[in-house]
Amino acid sequence: MSLPPYWLRDNCPCAECRDPRNGQKLFQITDLPDDLTITREEEADGLLHVLWSDGHRSRYPLDWPAQEHVGDGRSEAGKRLWTAADFAAGIPEADWAAYLADPVERAAVLGAVLRSGFAVLREVPVVERQVLAVARTFGYVRETNYGELFDVRVEADPNNLAFTSAAIAPHSDNPYRDPVPTLQLLHCLDNSAVGGDSGLVDGFRAAAILREEAPADFAVLTRTPVPFVFRDRATELRADRPLIELDPLGRIREVRFNNRSIGTLRLPAPELEAFYAAYRRFAAVTLRPELRLEFRLGPGDCLIFDNVRLLHARTAFERNGGRHLQGCYADLDSLSSTVAVLHRRTAALDAVADHFEGEGAAEYLGEAVTLAEHMLQAGALAEAAGAPAHLVAAALLHDVGHFDGAGLELMQGRDNRHSDAGADWLAQWFGPEVTEPVRLHVAAKRYLCTVEPGYRARLSDASEYTLQVQGGPMSEEQAAAFAAHPGAADAVAVRRWDEEAKYTDTATPGFDHFRPLLAALMR
Amino acid sequence: MSLPPYWLRDNCPCAECRDPRNGQKLFQITDLPDDLTITREEEADGLLHVLWSDGHRSRYPLDWPAQEHVGDGRSEAGKRLWTAADFAAGIPEADWAAYLADPVERAAVLGAVLRSGFAVLREVPVVERQVLAVARTFGYVRETNYGELFDVRVEADPNNLAFTSAAIAPHSDNPYRDPVPTLQLLHCLDNSAVGGDSGLVDGFRAAAILREEAPADFAVLTRTPVPFVFRDRATELRADRPLIELDPLGRIREVRFNNRSIGTLRLPAPELEAFYAAYRRFAAVTLRPELRLEFRLGPGDCLIFDNVRLLHARTAFERNGGRHLQGCYADLDSLSSTVAVLHRRTAALDAVADHFEGEGAAEYLGEAVTLAEHMLQAGALAEAAGAPAHLVAAALLHDVGHFDGAGLELMQGRDNRHSDAGADWLAQWFGPEVTEPVRLHVAAKRYLCTVEPGYRARLSDASEYTLQVQGGPMSEEQAAAFAAHPGAADAVAVRRWDEEAKYTDTATPGFDHFRPLLAALMR
Repeated sequence: MSLPPYWLRDNCPCAECRDPRNGQKLFQITDLPDDLTITREEEADGLLHVLWSDGHRSRYPLDWPAQEHVGDGRSEAGKRLWTAADFAAGIPEADWAAYLADPVERAAVLGAVLRSGFAVLREVPVVERQVLAVARTFGYVRETNYGELFDVRVEADPNNLAFTSAAIAPHSDNPYRDPVPTLQLLHCLDNSAVGGDSGLVDGFRAAAILREEAPADFAVLTRTPVPFVFRDRATELRADRPLIELDPLGRIREVRFNNRSIGTLRLPAPELEAFYAAYRRFAAVTLRPELRLEFRLGPGDCLIFDNVRLLHARTAFERNGGRHLQGCYADLDSLSSTVAVLHRRTAALDAVADHFEGEGAAEYLGEAVTLAEHMLQAGALAEAAGAPAHLVAAALLHDVGHFDGAGLELMQGRDNRHSDAGADWLAQWFGPEVTEPVRLHVAAKRYLCTVEPGYRARLSDASEYTLQVQGGPMSEEQAAAFAAHPGAADAVAVRRWDEEAKYTDTATPGFDHFRPLLAALMR
Repeated sequence: MSLPPYWLRDNCPCAECRDPRNGQKLFQITDLPDDLTITREEEADGLLHVLWSDGHRSRYPLDWPAQEHVGDGRSEAGKRLWTAADFAAGIPEADWAAYLADPVERAAVLGAVLRSGFAVLREVPVVERQVLAVARTFGYVRETNYGELFDVRVEADPNNLAFTSAAIAPHSDNPYRDPVPTLQLLHCLDNSAVGGDSGLVDGFRAAAILREEAPADFAVLTRTPVPFVFRDRATELRADRPLIELDPLGRIREVRFNNRSIGTLRLPAPELEAFYAAYRRFAAVTLRPELRLEFRLGPGDCLIFDNVRLLHARTAFERNGGRHLQGCYADLDSLSSTVAVLHRRTAALDAVADHFEGEGAAEYLGEAVTLAEHMLQAGALAEAAGAPAHLVAAALLHDVGHFDGAGLELMQGRDNRHSDAGADWLAQWFGPEVTEPVRLHVAAKRYLCTVEPGYRARLSDASEYTLQVQGGPMSEEQAAAFAAHPGAADAVAVRRWDEEAKYTDTATPGFDHFRPLLAALMR
């Protein structure tokens, strides 16, 4: 193998080189010696072992060096370019209640914003400032000179065409800002006017058409910084950016298009001629009817769209009719992060579900029920007792540390500290209100044996056996210390459902029953 | 002349083509006909008159077509690149109180952030969350996964090296965000630890050095998108951006540099070798001692710096010593807008001052005092009476509509409506609390003549003459309507100072005396 040594070493996954919590590197690239080489490499135990010339040792999964490149999804390569006909069967949308309740629905609709550039949430409460709450479900509001939010309705002395009843051609907002807000939200509170329909155009698609039909014009627009300007009494913004911005690999990455705010270009006359010819051609492409997706926002609809890709438009409306949208800006990076985390959590729940159906379905440490049955029963008992969600989750997941064969070690007389292992594993997704009762559920058994007469006698044979391995009943001092712990009551509650959950004749709900509850607790 | 027609027409300044309030265009570029030509052009009255083939007429200042290009100041062309020695005489700084009180001081220190990439405010109140108030003096806080603000101090379970006591090499923040926050603020609340000094490196200068010494390496870093990544329980951010980003004209525009968060590049081996060689060379440049400006933040210091240009660093500090900074992010566009508006206001005050010293020093409509003396006396009388700032300003500026020779028209028997002209001119910078008393000060004279016995008899001869031109005393109905106007009392107050301000033997302060008061009222 001839892997580039600095690349390989920069990606060493050991805990000395990277913070395991966030993957951040703990060394500087200049800390590596100038003559770094690989002294020895070998494959063993499914890992690539590398000994370095400076004595450091690294281990990589065998398939790691050849893994594929996955980009950040922001250029045209990560998008689904569209024309209006692509949405003949409907536009990406979700009901607000389902969006809030179901992480899969949430990931799907936010994923549509990443891929198609937009989505509509329906039945969002028709309440002023609600648009800010929508933005905060996936990111942070970007305040501008128009405020934290802006009202799109007819104003007496408008400082922007948006605040009149006039038609507005397809454009992107705030191109005079740098950084430009990459997302816009428009929440409809009232649209009883005649007219005032919404239009969207895929600016990436329009740019790709220009590239196809007039490559020289496309090139002019990518290499000409255009002065976008906005000025009122309190504001004087200017950004010099091309209408079509490419990434270093030549792919379309951002489109800014707003005739109203293009200031005065200062270039030699031939370049001005070339720019205006290209600009007019591109503008004409954005007006092609087949590119324009039209729909009407009604009260409760909230449109979310990519402001560095999609162009938005509206038809004129009757001045006296009611039309009121509230809008705000936000950014794609946080939305993308939210989608990634939702996918990660869904994958984690899938993995837990697999455990429940796989090894969890096998024998449980000498009990008559399987491990999965035991945990599902514990969760169901907590739920039936009206316990809060975090305790239902803790009861359901309290023995998750037994998965991956860990339970066997315990029965062989070694305390594998399954409560700690389970709590640590769960801490990737859940807060301490879930993880700490799991962590303390073994201690709670040892505590109850000490303080509650008759408790120990009720333990199952298997539980009595593991009690010894786990250290036996607590001393009086230990019990007093445990009782003083703020999480003691929750741990004892989980422990009682744990003890009860060993019936063979009880019908319990499956794991899927608990997914919404678990999803809501993940953070 | 052979000016490109679409360019010329796109810049038509007429009120039909552009909203006079904000310069936004009122037509689409596609609204112009395909065969637009100039039918006739001629110079007259200091203007270029153009008749278009579609019948539209435009007029441009004669010097307008040849005006120079002024960029947005964001690339290296708009910066003062530096090494540490350039600040041997001191770093850009201002006292917080002076920063708040004096727009010239504010523009200077914020201008330093634009040109040099940083500035320090001193004696900022040592109060938690104060850093947000600092950011709001020039823009908007950019919230991130670290919160609206973040505390830089030793944390028990840090998710970022910043929250430990370790040394940190020069880097930029949040490169895994796109848009990356373009400004960072760090406000020192405590720095009693040994160590914990701050360092800054001009990343543009470092990049320029790389371009000079190793152009091939420079080129590699500008064309290689690097995956910057950050991941914790609630976050999964990724941005693929080059370490050195050029604008379409090939000028350095942004630098992102953060070894900790560079993820895994996936490229053919020779490209990985080339990237790592270039990256290591660039990293070594950023560590050159002559590039590193070192200083120590003490309690009350607030550092503001350009996060897409400057790299910041800190030395290690003793864990047990007290060190606590609060930081937040913001953006360059709003800061730049704030500086431009401050310059615009300063220029406006300069223009008013010029009027006071120029034509204002001439005879005032037949009065014994000059117009400037009259207005300064009125302002001084208002101030001496303990009037609120907006009325002092209104009294000082009440006759500003007489400037530019307008006063002469009035004495020739035409009402030039100087009160309206003055109020409209002032409305560019002042709110209605200043402009409306100015607008109504003539009406107030006509009102007082009607309702106050003996008032008219006290008018000067010149004022009695202009009263006739202005419509004479009000009718009873007019007077009742005026008295009901919410601004009537302020207008009457200004009118009384106006009447009094005609003494030749009174020493009055100069215009500069009133500048801070006017500056504070501008918005």
